[in-house]
Amino acid sequence: MERHHFEGDLDTLKHRLLHMGSLIEAQTHKALVSLLERRAELARAVIEGDAAVNLLQMEIDDRCLKMLALQQPMATDLRLITSAMKMGADLERIGDQAVNIAETALRLQETPPLRPVIDIAEMSELAQKMTRDALDAFVRRDAALARDVLLRDDRVDHLKDTVFRVLLTHMMADPGTIERALGLILISRNIERIADHATNIAEDVIFLVEGKDVRHHHSGE
Amino acid sequence: MERHHFEGDLDTLKHRLLHMGSLIEAQTHKALVSLLERRAELARAVIEGDAAVNLLQMEIDDRCLKMLALQQPMATDLRLITSAMKMGADLERIGDQAVNIAETALRLQETPPLRPVIDIAEMSELAQKMTRDALDAFVRRDAALARDVLLRDDRVDHLKDTVFRVLLTHMMADPGTIERALGLILISRNIERIADHATNIAEDVIFLVEGKDVRHHHSGE
Repeated sequence: MERHHFEGDLDTLKHRLLHMGSLIEAQTHKALVSLLERRAELARAVIEGDAAVNLLQMEIDDRCLKMLALQQPMATDLRLITSAMKMGADLERIGDQAVNIAETALRLQETPPLRPVIDIAEMSELAQKMTRDALDAFVRRDAALARDVLLRDDRVDHLKDTVFRVLLTHMMADPGTIERALGLILISRNIERIADHATNIAEDVIFLVEGKDVRHHHSGE
Repeated sequence: MERHHFEGDLDTLKHRLLHMGSLIEAQTHKALVSLLERRAELARAVIEGDAAVNLLQMEIDDRCLKMLALQQPMATDLRLITSAMKMGADLERIGDQAVNIAETALRLQETPPLRPVIDIAEMSELAQKMTRDALDAFVRRDAALARDVLLRDDRVDHLKDTVFRVLLTHMMADPGTIERALGLILISRNIERIADHATNIAEDVIFLVEGKDVRHHHSGE
């Protein structure tokens, strides 16, 4: 296998990961718009769209394994390929969270709206931006941007706690809201997990660029 | 690097993974006993014990990367090493769930017990057994056992739904139980995720033994 062939494979791998990233971004965005604007057709599109995400992850995994087997890459290339496998797994799990949100959003649409879900909207904006920036950091090999993503995880956790307290108060004041409030609490946990996966991707980028394993060392963990 | 040296490294890798498996098993078990028997010291031990789990995952990752870089393994060995990386990640995440359960268990101990948490106990038994069997399947290269683990995921999902309905009814009948019921609902989600990670590990085992990617194909997904 010649070097220029290998470079081509690496390039394709990066493009497939970015393609997966935009698919995931669209899925997450649709799921949250479906929740906030009560649009059932969007939620259904997210649920149907998950199969494509899963296929893409399996394809990426397969590409990585083949590159590892056939081309026996060293050092940086090796890190790139193993990081790509991890990123694919994290993106796929973000996709699962989008499906969970869509499913709950569908259920919530059968009942009157609970309240303006402002904190959830902010949480979801943050988590989506974290995912996008983690992938941008990957493309640009930008460890500084990746570190910035790590820092934002605390804000998401803080919002999650606020959402929890506000909804708990609602439920206790008016038990008629319990079922809906519960749905929103679960959605806030799904968003928190999206932010966690974005954090994982950012950690992979730092490892890729600097060869340094920063998991379990940054704040907010 | 000679072949017998490589065999030794593979052996060490397997042993470290199994060691991580028993650590995780102990963490999960302690977290759930802490919940069911209201023992705060166990919950605290789980929270403190997470650092060792994280270190172990980083060590396993590092071993895998070094083996990939220095020994350029082919075919089955390559699959074993990449699967080990994935399994380490899943085990680490099971550890995170054990910590989440321990934290909620600590909070719940400040209030009177809600009810016999029978379904949660059954869920947790199932999830622990799934994790143990997935690791056994790995050691014995037993694809049949791994497939059996996959089938059990449906039962966990079913119990999760039951727990949700029962606790929702509680909350609506007696708003004084809302906060505690919520805690138990979140714990049931943590257990569900443990079962999901055990499922991931079982899928890795099937891939390892049969070279077949069964993700997103078995029932219950």
